Amino acid sequence: MLRDSGGAQSLRSSVVLGLHLYSSQHLCWGPTCLIPRPLAPVPESRRPAAACPSSDSCPGGPGLPCSASSCDLPVLLPQGRSTVIARVKSLCSLVIQRVRDVTGIASVQRSHISHSFFCQVAKAVLTSQLKPHQDKPNFIIKTPKGTRDLSPQQMVVREKILDLVVSCFKRHGAKGLDTPAFELKDFDIAGQFDPMIPDAECLKIMCEILSGLQLGDFLIKVNDRRIMDGMFAVCGVPESKFRAVGSSIDKLDKMSWKDVRHEMVAKKGLAPEVADQIGDYVQCHGGVTLVEQMFQDPRLSQNKQALEGLEDLKLLFEYLTLFGISEKISFDLSLARGLDYYTGVIYEAILLQSPAQAGEEPLSVGSVAAGGRYDGLVGMFDPKGHSVPCVGLSIGVERIFSIVEQRMKTLGESVRTTETQVFVATPQKNFLQERLKLIAELWDAGIKAEMLYKNNPKLLTQLHYCENMGIPLVVIIGEQELKEGVIKLRSVASREEVAIKRENLVAEIQKRLSKS
Amino acid sequence: MLRDSGGAQSLRSSVVLGLHLYSSQHLCWGPTCLIPRPLAPVPESRRPAAACPSSDSCPGGPGLPCSASSCDLPVLLPQGRSTVIARVKSLCSLVIQRVRDVTGIASVQRSHISHSFFCQVAKAVLTSQLKPHQDKPNFIIKTPKGTRDLSPQQMVVREKILDLVVSCFKRHGAKGLDTPAFELKDFDIAGQFDPMIPDAECLKIMCEILSGLQLGDFLIKVNDRRIMDGMFAVCGVPESKFRAVGSSIDKLDKMSWKDVRHEMVAKKGLAPEVADQIGDYVQCHGGVTLVEQMFQDPRLSQNKQALEGLEDLKLLFEYLTLFGISEKISFDLSLARGLDYYTGVIYEAILLQSPAQAGEEPLSVGSVAAGGRYDGLVGMFDPKGHSVPCVGLSIGVERIFSIVEQRMKTLGESVRTTETQVFVATPQKNFLQERLKLIAELWDAGIKAEMLYKNNPKLLTQLHYCENMGIPLVVIIGEQELKEGVIKLRSVASREEVAIKRENLVAEIQKRLSKS
Repeated sequence: MLRDSGGAQSLRSSVVLGLHLYSSQHLCWGPTCLIPRPLAPVPESRRPAAACPSSDSCPGGPGLPCSASSCDLPVLLPQGRSTVIARVKSLCSLVIQRVRDVTGIASVQRSHISHSFFCQVAKAVLTSQLKPHQDKPNFIIKTPKGTRDLSPQQMVVREKILDLVVSCFKRHGAKGLDTPAFELKDFDIAGQFDPMIPDAECLKIMCEILSGLQLGDFLIKVNDRRIMDGMFAVCGVPESKFRAVGSSIDKLDKMSWKDVRHEMVAKKGLAPEVADQIGDYVQCHGGVTLVEQMFQDPRLSQNKQALEGLEDLKLLFEYLTLFGISEKISFDLSLARGLDYYTGVIYEAILLQSPAQAGEEPLSVGSVAAGGRYDGLVGMFDPKGHSVPCVGLSIGVERIFSIVEQRMKTLGESVRTTETQVFVATPQKNFLQERLKLIAELWDAGIKAEMLYKNNPKLLTQLHYCENMGIPLVVIIGEQELKEGVIKLRSVASREEVAIKRENLVAEIQKRLSKS
Repeated sequence: MLRDSGGAQSLRSSVVLGLHLYSSQHLCWGPTCLIPRPLAPVPESRRPAAACPSSDSCPGGPGLPCSASSCDLPVLLPQGRSTVIARVKSLCSLVIQRVRDVTGIASVQRSHISHSFFCQVAKAVLTSQLKPHQDKPNFIIKTPKGTRDLSPQQMVVREKILDLVVSCFKRHGAKGLDTPAFELKDFDIAGQFDPMIPDAECLKIMCEILSGLQLGDFLIKVNDRRIMDGMFAVCGVPESKFRAVGSSIDKLDKMSWKDVRHEMVAKKGLAPEVADQIGDYVQCHGGVTLVEQMFQDPRLSQNKQALEGLEDLKLLFEYLTLFGISEKISFDLSLARGLDYYTGVIYEAILLQSPAQAGEEPLSVGSVAAGGRYDGLVGMFDPKGHSVPCVGLSIGVERIFSIVEQRMKTLGESVRTTETQVFVATPQKNFLQERLKLIAELWDAGIKAEMLYKNNPKLLTQLHYCENMGIPLVVIIGEQELKEGVIKLRSVASREEVAIKRENLVAEIQKRLSKS
């Protein structure tokens, strides 16, 4: 199966595996990593037993039993080679640790253990996670439950998106914080401040991120918990039904008003005339003029809570206009937001057009960012009951990942998984030394450079590699160039070549890269 | 306890919490996050029961029981406010989910639940992780076992170090890969290549990273498994004792030769004359001349394995010289490396001098990076027994984090936890609108900017904030400036102020920032 990801002779086998460092996720380290997965039985011909190396003599080692039984470890290795290597390294360490634990011999090392015994222990390690009724399963070295491997392509997409989000957060004075086990794509402002200033900044941040991501046109719906509650009160909804009715209204982006009304009347037990009054309100959306209009509303303007909310929204829109984003914001009386700790302004960003091509099935993605004010939450847990007003937002990065990935699939776009800028090539034999000297010069200048790990690769092979990997520039060194003290610099796209003085090469490359 | 991290009136309360995105560690999401920790009993006065808000009416909600008992949820909130907010949000969601599960009412929302009932369920959620003998513990909303929260300061240090490592990996054509549950700070090159070319690149990468990190002088010890085994063979060590003796030799960086010799003879049962022969070898270290010398060694040159290793090392040193790093590499016959899957070249980087100040206790850090060739590991698990030669390296980032953090502590260096470049201030009242317009301009130009979330902050408060937060530039707008169409640009360090035309402000700021 390993071969499937690129033969040793093929170009792809020279892929360099750089394993990402972001966050040390060795949290779940341990046997729990190794979860059995029921699979179709492995065909006899593919079982590793047949491949057990005959050269595997058993050195015995310090007191370890040596089983003569053939290796029958049914490990299936999934996915690309890079993942396999990481996992096999881990399993290997686990097995040796297990042997040390069992035998009590701390100095046991891999070479003490025969291949067949090693496989036995590996099987035991894998089996230790087995369910009772599973008798003879096939194993897979698997990621912990609830997690998944990410391919290099997925990592590139994620990295770009997260870079953009993080750089926006930093632009707004954010501090980094790493709290494992929580989903943290949030930006929060905590503290006692003058009204709506931090709230407006949260909306500005959402706009900056969504514009930057170029996901297409978007809109941020805004409402206020107090306006919603006031609206319910003046329409005659009993207070005990506020949230139940709110959750019906939250469905208006997926259901028609008729269906929502039916749910409120038939399931939530609302009087039909009450439902109709709500209907008049929740179908309203607009800009600051709608806020003004609601101030004039004969019933809503009688409700203290609603008035407070409207005052704040009016101020908010003033600030949003100063930030230049008011046309992206819609006051929407149907916005309810599921999370229950919000106490004031709430908001939710939606994409206005499907990013898929015309004729494609439109993507249904719901909201891609949301947030609001939650002034009561932290105080609820404070021993002295002190409140800490908070306002914040969450970016739905997983949703955004899916949208971007699906769009790229639809458009047939490919992702470069490396960032290599320059390839060092030679048309001649016995030029390894010159290539090594040259590439070290480039690395030392901070230029991302690669070459083939062969003594005498063919020029065509080298140029094909650049085309396949999307490397934009090639530097070529041969006998002629060496004699003249120049290097040939080739653009892969245009196939143009120019000779450049050796001492000017780094500067010329940097000039070209800064232009692109 | 929340107050301890900065009062609502203090400047620090305007801290913006940007929670980092790197890797979605919602892997461990769930009740396992909430691990009870035995603590000293909470003083009666600090228990939240006393603080249970009297305003907490119980709206009942759809069929939920309402307990009249007072709230006695003994939740202790640790650390800074940012962490608390993240955790409280999570606990809140968990509690509402639990109420939904228990009652079967999916539409239950926070406002349905009385404060006391909410606290009861929260306690139950926290208690569910309790051990049987723990009767009435005090709880802490805790991170999952084996994990820890990172402070903003720690995050800054980590981010800088990881950035440097990742950018070096990318310079060498690395692809990103995210495999949860493994400690992945590795760079690996897999495939069938001409000898020592990828191996030399691994050493080059280690040098680039360690130079870039400026941890002080370092040295990379190099050896080869085959040379070590050959050395043992010619010295007369029985093959079964190769690894046990190897693990003794590995201690030579912490123990004297005398002690290691004693261990080999007394504990590992080696004949004293065999130990002495090993001693002659393992005390050798040097550059390529030592490799040449070993070729002439009358005994080692008779061993086929050792000769193969020496040939490779000779070639390796040739490439290292071309890379300009040979003076950083030491052929060291005492290097054994603990991990057991290495088959050829092995290496380990050590810091040569303690980064602590003179007079300080020197840091004992051991190796900060290591790796080697492991040609047999992947093939061992391949169903057809195909081998995939690999060479790789690991960067000991956790160790490097500690070294850098300890050094900063020693030197009394502080870390800026935000990257804010410009602060928008005003000396006058009623200038909020102008501040908002100005800061939006800066944000839209990609400049990292902050202002106080107050309508009318005092100028001194604003300038103090900049000094406390290390913000280098202040832009000041007042009536005079507005009239003249200028903005005052102030350097926080020099306190120099210049007036700049409003339309040139962004360009001037970008010019100053690019210089620093």
